[in-house]
Amino acid sequence: MVKPRILQQNKISTKVGQKPGFLFRPENAFDTRLFLISFDEFELVEKEYESYDELFAYMQQRPHQRHWLDVRGYGNLEILENIARDFNIHPLQLEDVISDYQRPKVEEESGSLFMISRMVTFTPKKLIDDDQLSIFTGPNYVLTFQSDYEDCLNPLRLRIRGGKGIIRKRPVVYMAYAIMDVVLDHYFPVLAEMSDYLDELEDCLFKQPKKEILSRILSVKREIVKLRRIIWPERDKISELLRSSPEVIPDDLKIYFRDTYDHSVQIIDLVENYKEMSGSLVELYLSNINNRMNEIMKVLTIISSIFIPLSFIVGIYGMNFSRENPDGSINYLNMPELYQPYGYITLLFLMGALILGQIYFFYRKGWFK
Amino acid sequence: MVKPRILQQNKISTKVGQKPGFLFRPENAFDTRLFLISFDEFELVEKEYESYDELFAYMQQRPHQRHWLDVRGYGNLEILENIARDFNIHPLQLEDVISDYQRPKVEEESGSLFMISRMVTFTPKKLIDDDQLSIFTGPNYVLTFQSDYEDCLNPLRLRIRGGKGIIRKRPVVYMAYAIMDVVLDHYFPVLAEMSDYLDELEDCLFKQPKKEILSRILSVKREIVKLRRIIWPERDKISELLRSSPEVIPDDLKIYFRDTYDHSVQIIDLVENYKEMSGSLVELYLSNINNRMNEIMKVLTIISSIFIPLSFIVGIYGMNFSRENPDGSINYLNMPELYQPYGYITLLFLMGALILGQIYFFYRKGWFK
Amino acid sequence: MVKPRILQQNKISTKVGQKPGFLFRPENAFDTRLFLISFDEFELVEKEYESYDELFAYMQQRPHQRHWLDVRGYGNLEILENIARDFNIHPLQLEDVISDYQRPKVEEESGSLFMISRMVTFTPKKLIDDDQLSIFTGPNYVLTFQSDYEDCLNPLRLRIRGGKGIIRKRPVVYMAYAIMDVVLDHYFPVLAEMSDYLDELEDCLFKQPKKEILSRILSVKREIVKLRRIIWPERDKISELLRSSPEVIPDDLKIYFRDTYDHSVQIIDLVENYKEMSGSLVELYLSNINNRMNEIMKVLTIISSIFIPLSFIVGIYGMNFSRENPDGSINYLNMPELYQPYGYITLLFLMGALILGQIYFFYRKGWFK
Amino acid sequence: MVKPRILQQNKISTKVGQKPGFLFRPENAFDTRLFLISFDEFELVEKEYESYDELFAYMQQRPHQRHWLDVRGYGNLEILENIARDFNIHPLQLEDVISDYQRPKVEEESGSLFMISRMVTFTPKKLIDDDQLSIFTGPNYVLTFQSDYEDCLNPLRLRIRGGKGIIRKRPVVYMAYAIMDVVLDHYFPVLAEMSDYLDELEDCLFKQPKKEILSRILSVKREIVKLRRIIWPERDKISELLRSSPEVIPDDLKIYFRDTYDHSVQIIDLVENYKEMSGSLVELYLSNINNRMNEIMKVLTIISSIFIPLSFIVGIYGMNFSRENPDGSINYLNMPELYQPYGYITLLFLMGALILGQIYFFYRKGWFK
Amino acid sequence: MVKPRILQQNKISTKVGQKPGFLFRPENAFDTRLFLISFDEFELVEKEYESYDELFAYMQQRPHQRHWLDVRGYGNLEILENIARDFNIHPLQLEDVISDYQRPKVEEESGSLFMISRMVTFTPKKLIDDDQLSIFTGPNYVLTFQSDYEDCLNPLRLRIRGGKGIIRKRPVVYMAYAIMDVVLDHYFPVLAEMSDYLDELEDCLFKQPKKEILSRILSVKREIVKLRRIIWPERDKISELLRSSPEVIPDDLKIYFRDTYDHSVQIIDLVENYKEMSGSLVELYLSNINNRMNEIMKVLTIISSIFIPLSFIVGIYGMNFSRENPDGSINYLNMPELYQPYGYITLLFLMGALILGQIYFFYRKGWFK
Ligand SMILES: [Mg+2]
Ligand SMILES: [Mg+2]
Ligand SMILES: [Mg+2]
Ligand SMILES: [Mg+2]
Ligand SMILES: [Mg+2]
Ligand SMILES: [Mg+2]
Ligand SMILES: [Mg+2]
Ligand SMILES: [Mg+2]
Ligand SMILES: [Mg+2]
Ligand SMILES: [Mg+2]
Ligand SMILES: [Mg+2]
Ligand SMILES: [Mg+2]
Ligand SMILES: [Mg+2]
Ligand SMILES: [Mg+2]
Ligand SMILES: [Mg+2]
Ligand SMILES: [Mg+2]
Ligand SMILES: [Mg+2]
Ligand SMILES: [Mg+2]
Ligand SMILES: [Mg+2]
Ligand SMILES: [Mg+2]
Ligand SMILES: [Mg+2]
Ligand SMILES: [Mg+2]
Ligand SMILES: [Mg+2]
Ligand SMILES: [Mg+2]
Ligand SMILES: [Mg+2]
Ligand SMILES: [Mg+2]
Ligand SMILES: [Mg+2]
Ligand SMILES: [Mg+2]
Ligand SMILES: [Mg+2]
Ligand SMILES: [Mg+2]
Ligand SMILES: [Mg+2]
Repeated sequence: MVKPRILQQNKISTKVGQKPGFLFRPENAFDTRLFLISFDEFELVEKEYESYDELFAYMQQRPHQRHWLDVRGYGNLEILENIARDFNIHPLQLEDVISDYQRPKVEEESGSLFMISRMVTFTPKKLIDDDQLSIFTGPNYVLTFQSDYEDCLNPLRLRIRGGKGIIRKRPVVYMAYAIMDVVLDHYFPVLAEMSDYLDELEDCLFKQPKKEILSRILSVKREIVKLRRIIWPERDKISELLRSSPEVIPDDLKIYFRDTYDHSVQIIDLVENYKEMSGSLVELYLSNINNRMNEIMKVLTIISSIFIPLSFIVGIYGMNFSRENPDGSINYLNMPELYQPYGYITLLFLMGALILGQIYFFYRKGWFK
Repeated sequence: MVKPRILQQNKISTKVGQKPGFLFRPENAFDTRLFLISFDEFELVEKEYESYDELFAYMQQRPHQRHWLDVRGYGNLEILENIARDFNIHPLQLEDVISDYQRPKVEEESGSLFMISRMVTFTPKKLIDDDQLSIFTGPNYVLTFQSDYEDCLNPLRLRIRGGKGIIRKRPVVYMAYAIMDVVLDHYFPVLAEMSDYLDELEDCLFKQPKKEILSRILSVKREIVKLRRIIWPERDKISELLRSSPEVIPDDLKIYFRDTYDHSVQIIDLVENYKEMSGSLVELYLSNINNRMNEIMKVLTIISSIFIPLSFIVGIYGMNFSRENPDGSINYLNMPELYQPYGYITLLFLMGALILGQIYFFYRKGWFK
Repeated sequence: MVKPRILQQNKISTKVGQKPGFLFRPENAFDTRLFLISFDEFELVEKEYESYDELFAYMQQRPHQRHWLDVRGYGNLEILENIARDFNIHPLQLEDVISDYQRPKVEEESGSLFMISRMVTFTPKKLIDDDQLSIFTGPNYVLTFQSDYEDCLNPLRLRIRGGKGIIRKRPVVYMAYAIMDVVLDHYFPVLAEMSDYLDELEDCLFKQPKKEILSRILSVKREIVKLRRIIWPERDKISELLRSSPEVIPDDLKIYFRDTYDHSVQIIDLVENYKEMSGSLVELYLSNINNRMNEIMKVLTIISSIFIPLSFIVGIYGMNFSRENPDGSINYLNMPELYQPYGYITLLFLMGALILGQIYFFYRKGWFK
Repeated sequence: MVKPRILQQNKISTKVGQKPGFLFRPENAFDTRLFLISFDEFELVEKEYESYDELFAYMQQRPHQRHWLDVRGYGNLEILENIARDFNIHPLQLEDVISDYQRPKVEEESGSLFMISRMVTFTPKKLIDDDQLSIFTGPNYVLTFQSDYEDCLNPLRLRIRGGKGIIRKRPVVYMAYAIMDVVLDHYFPVLAEMSDYLDELEDCLFKQPKKEILSRILSVKREIVKLRRIIWPERDKISELLRSSPEVIPDDLKIYFRDTYDHSVQIIDLVENYKEMSGSLVELYLSNINNRMNEIMKVLTIISSIFIPLSFIVGIYGMNFSRENPDGSINYLNMPELYQPYGYITLLFLMGALILGQIYFFYRKGWFK
Repeated sequence: MVKPRILQQNKISTKVGQKPGFLFRPENAFDTRLFLISFDEFELVEKEYESYDELFAYMQQRPHQRHWLDVRGYGNLEILENIARDFNIHPLQLEDVISDYQRPKVEEESGSLFMISRMVTFTPKKLIDDDQLSIFTGPNYVLTFQSDYEDCLNPLRLRIRGGKGIIRKRPVVYMAYAIMDVVLDHYFPVLAEMSDYLDELEDCLFKQPKKEILSRILSVKREIVKLRRIIWPERDKISELLRSSPEVIPDDLKIYFRDTYDHSVQIIDLVENYKEMSGSLVELYLSNINNRMNEIMKVLTIISSIFIPLSFIVGIYGMNFSRENPDGSINYLNMPELYQPYGYITLLFLMGALILGQIYFFYRKGWFK
């Protein structure tokens, strides 16, 4: 596995000074593809269009149907600008759509909504990947924009196709709600994976606390913080929708947005929880380092405390004090121990007793735990 | 006892994309049981019903009585959906009822209330277990939903049966209050147990600071944080009730809700207090590790400082400098000490003095404390 | 002195599920005593009554005087309930009065006030002891309730008796203010004692940093946090009083409450200050541990670095390399040093120089500071 | 320099229970002195008065002039009370004036202002000294009170005397503004000195990190926190003035108060900055301790790792294994190395190589850096 | 590279007590230069003027054109005061313009705006350099003031010259917006550089954690905090503009300011992110120190634990216990090992086995990792 980094953020756009609303074709942009689902209570037609003009003509002819135009990939600026012109999208809003990173937000203008949601996934590298989903509503259509072809909206498409639910009978804003709701539902499995990963890191901490684990913890903490920066404005967005006038969101639909609001608050609770826990993991790691130090020092101290004094003792009996005086007489005071028949044996016993004594001492101090 | 974990959270539901209000039968759901208490000032009938239809018919026939229908277990979705239909419960509200985890909240709709409370217990594994209690009020009934058969409402049932108190004379919202109040009353013994456990952990820290104690402290800290996430919205819920119109809560009942509000604030005070204290325990633990390190190093340093120099001294007198020159003459400068009659004795005394001196030195430094 | 504990809180009441306003006689409750001071501008009568009925009759007969009824001890629930009935005290309010712990708060009802204040003292065990004082105002009376016989209101009683001040001419709410003000004045000496204690702890840290001092610091930090939990709602209480209508508090009295408000804010400033400082003491303690470790390691390193190499050197000359070859010839390469006339002396000098060199090295590194 | 203390606060007044507005002559109060500056656009008279009555008569006679009465020292309570009576100062306000410590605040009453400012200096002992300045405005006068004779208002007095500026033509509230502005201007040099001191402490940390430096850092951090407690209410005070009615502060003067408001916000920015930086210094200090520990341990480990194995080797050749068997035959397996002609030299070379090897090993590990 | 400092702030102006609006010529002020761009939809004239009077006359003659007067350098106070007089700039506002440091803010007065923006760059010394840009709008002109000749507005000048965009057709406030927007766009490359630098520091931490790296981290943290102090009021400024009346900012321009608002919030997100990450770097550094300590101690402990016991063993066989009794008989109990033919070899093998055993022991403990 690649070395974890604490620092790893979205590339920051550094093109400055352009006129507002000026569009850059993003690097490596996907080709623009157009998907249209048109339906009323009785009929549903779903098609990918090659030509935008054909698509728009089709929509014009069916003013009494509801349409979901899903634009994927920002490679063809011309099409995007045509859409903006036909659907009353301000150049600054189109700029927001194409930009890498936009906080969740909602803008209301004469009954139409422009909303930004962020679709998150937890990658195998344990990073949060968040893709932007831009949603516009009009009298009889919903427009969505996303930078690539994959998204998390398939469950919703299935519900529309199946004609299940009330989605095909309700006003268009209900479909915008449904999209937002599916996106938010997707946060929960991401959080579940994140929780599993935190769990795994905690296990690691107990089993084999490698040095790099702190980087991993701090890296996941960063991802949690990133999620937190997304989900708080998401909540504010929904709360703003809840306060919008009945022309924008009819009163009987408010309960659906309140439900989504509850979800966003629940996600916030979980994210705050994970933040707290990743902090606890850091504390655990730091205390682990110190505990290991204690272990190491205990080994050193036990070994040294036992053998350094013993070395001194045997050193004593390695001294060369002269037993004989120059006159040949015996000097009984110089190291008489060396001349006892049982001197060596006695000393070995004494040293053995000393070792046992010290081991007992350390045992009592609980150092062998 | 099982190894404590820092990370241990509610299972996160990861089913995504369903239509709003779509009901999943929760895994391991309990069979649905229906308990009805019907009463007025003079009469009280309490019964568990096998058939919902029978129960509903009974309630229909007694519009002038008050009813408390207590639904336990979410195993039978059909019954739940019938109840929702008959009691005007929105599918999204029913979804909330069945969901694992919902923050405390209140929703008001044309004079009726939908409230979520959380009933907490402190398990023998030192974890907070919180069960959801959903409460609906109507003109002459209170509906409660809970996922299992055990709850903390028996004291209230006793009061109703005993006809004691004013509960049987007051409007139905008073009973909703009484339920909420009993639930909240239950937080206090939970907090008392938690406080005892913190106390126990502090004792452990002083007596035998095992390594796993940090995990325990961080684990109880997590539970405290969890409690905090429950009790703050509980307070907000009551505060919202306090601000509701007199049609919903008559003015003379407001004082009861204000009392409950006081309780919630008192619980918040306690929880914040415990959070602070668990933080102090972490600090105490970390300083304990460092103190132990100091202990260990002191032992090593005292032993080494005493015996390493002594080993050097005896090493000196183990050297083999030659006393005799090649010409047989005595070389009086090479280690004359070895040839003194009292050399050995003197050296032993000197080394003894050195030992005493060092012990005195370390004693003065306060290392034996 | 007893071992300090971090954890030590008020006993939490764990009786649950009683009907609201149900009264428990607190364990170890003091006998209820009744003290009445009745006065107008000209006359003052002060008396302790044995019988509540007699007292109430006396008050009834003097509607034009002002009365301060001071109830001490909650041992006699019957008297308390009679007072509640006669003075229009709601059962829930009476429950609050008797409860161990109630945050400072104010409740207004048709021009009457119910206020909770907390009287604090700093005990010799360095703990905050806070007693609850409940205050009710009526048209011509002030009622106070406290759980024991000692309080901090004597200076006020002296002022009333002395007829000094304007207290005997002003409306009754002024006396309620005066009580609150005296209670709040008492916080200052408590804070001064706390400050002295923090000072003492800082001294300890510098002189003899015993291990238990961290417990003491964390314990006083907890008491500071406790004080903070009392004084913030105290401020809110006064701020709410300041916003009350002129019927409750006449405009010319508002300036007195504003003064008390200033005091509460000043107390908050001091308490926040102490919290900060106790945090600094913890930091100081932790750095002290690490500094001591450095001291210990320096001793070990100096001793070891000096004597371990020396031991090696003397070890060399303790080796037994053979001077004589088997053929009796001298092997001049095997340890010729041992056979120099000045070998031993030279070696001693060299070792002495090594010692001095190392001492100089460590001196230059500033290890002897 | 005296040992720095973390704890050092204003003396807390502990006189309790006095009637509101009761004045204590502060201990060590300065004698009261009275300075009057009277002026209009054409004339300016400045004089210190011995007698308050004379002063007041003078002011009475000149109702069309503007007057600045500056009262310094609170030694003469009688004068202060006379001033309060003549200038409509409430006893509680006078109490505030005389009190040691009052937060910055403003009180408005029928077009007159009572403001508290705090004049700060940074003492040579690196402490914040803050003196209270109380300001009252009336129709044609400004009254200031301060506890001693020194202040920071001389630049303003010079401007008035010089007749420079618009100060002599504007309404009296402009002069109150000018006083407040000069006081606030004085915060900037104090902050500059504080910044220099922080700089000095950082230098110390790099050069000679004495143990007491942490106390110094924590002490300056405390002073920063103290400043923060002063400047935030100062900002609130000005913000309240900005919102006052045009009768109190004419609209064309509001821009001056807004400028002062900007200053207060700028001071807050600086103070918050310093708080952050003092926190960084603590972190730097703590990491320095740990780095020093690493240094010490490296010395110990290098010395021990080199010489302990060498001591073992020379120990081997100090063993006394017998070369000769009892029968006089040579035991060629017992320590044959000792009998090689080049044994000693070879060993010395081997040990030298070992030393070099280890030095290289530690060099590669970067321990000599 | 120069040693990094944690403390390094803007010089604080310490001139106090001047009359409000009094101008000091800043030290080292640049000569004042005047640049005028005048344009309408058809024509554009751009010129640097030597004489202010000539410039002003030119502007007076063309009331139907729009003008951008860009004043660079504050060396000539007389010109600045003339401009203030002609363009209705209050002395206090001019003081703000010239002052070193002013928070971003906006002031509105009868439809005209005075705004402060800050232009940031990230210097090679890894510091944030922020220059103040003051912007005034009038009916047909925009005035900008900056202290030196370099700025970040050239992309905008190019757009105006090229006649591209709508800038030449819109009201003057749109140009003020365009200036603000370009300034804010410049924050993004600065943040990108900062992110690269944080990345570089993280790399350093892993490769060669020098002691000074903590200073670098704390220094960049300080710059991040500085940026944060700039960008939050910037956001407040724009938010205040968004709430201004349509006379000041026409409703169809509001969308442009909202776009800029989004940018400011995005910058805040990034800055808060970097703050979090710099905190993580500090944690990583501190844990690195402790890990290195563990490494060092492991080396010491392994070496000591292996060789200290071995030294004891060889010490034993260096003892001089006498094999012969005084009577010439052999004392078989005194160190018989020394007289075994295979004694030495056996001992070497035993010691070798001991070494291997210990290495295996430490390997199992994972110390060689
Ligand atoms: Mg990176
Ligand atoms: Mg732009
Ligand atoms: Mg833009
Ligand atoms: Mg992506
Ligand atoms: Mg995608
Ligand atoms: Mg829901
Ligand atoms: Mg788990
Ligand atoms: Mg859903
Ligand atoms: Mg849902
Ligand atoms: Mg459960
Ligand atoms: Mg249950
Ligand atoms: Mg209560
Ligand atoms: Mg306890
Ligand atoms: Mg209760
Ligand atoms: Mg209760
Ligand atoms: Mg008590
Ligand atoms: Mg008491
Ligand atoms: Mg006061
Ligand atoms: Mg002190
Ligand atoms: Mg008082
Ligand atoms: Mg007072
Ligand atoms: Mg002073
Ligand atoms: Mg002074
Ligand atoms: Mg200014
Ligand atoms: Mg500097
Ligand atoms: Mg000024
Ligand atoms: Mg100024
Ligand atoms: Mg610059
Ligand atoms: Mg510039
Ligand atoms: Mg945008
Ligand atoms: Mg440490």
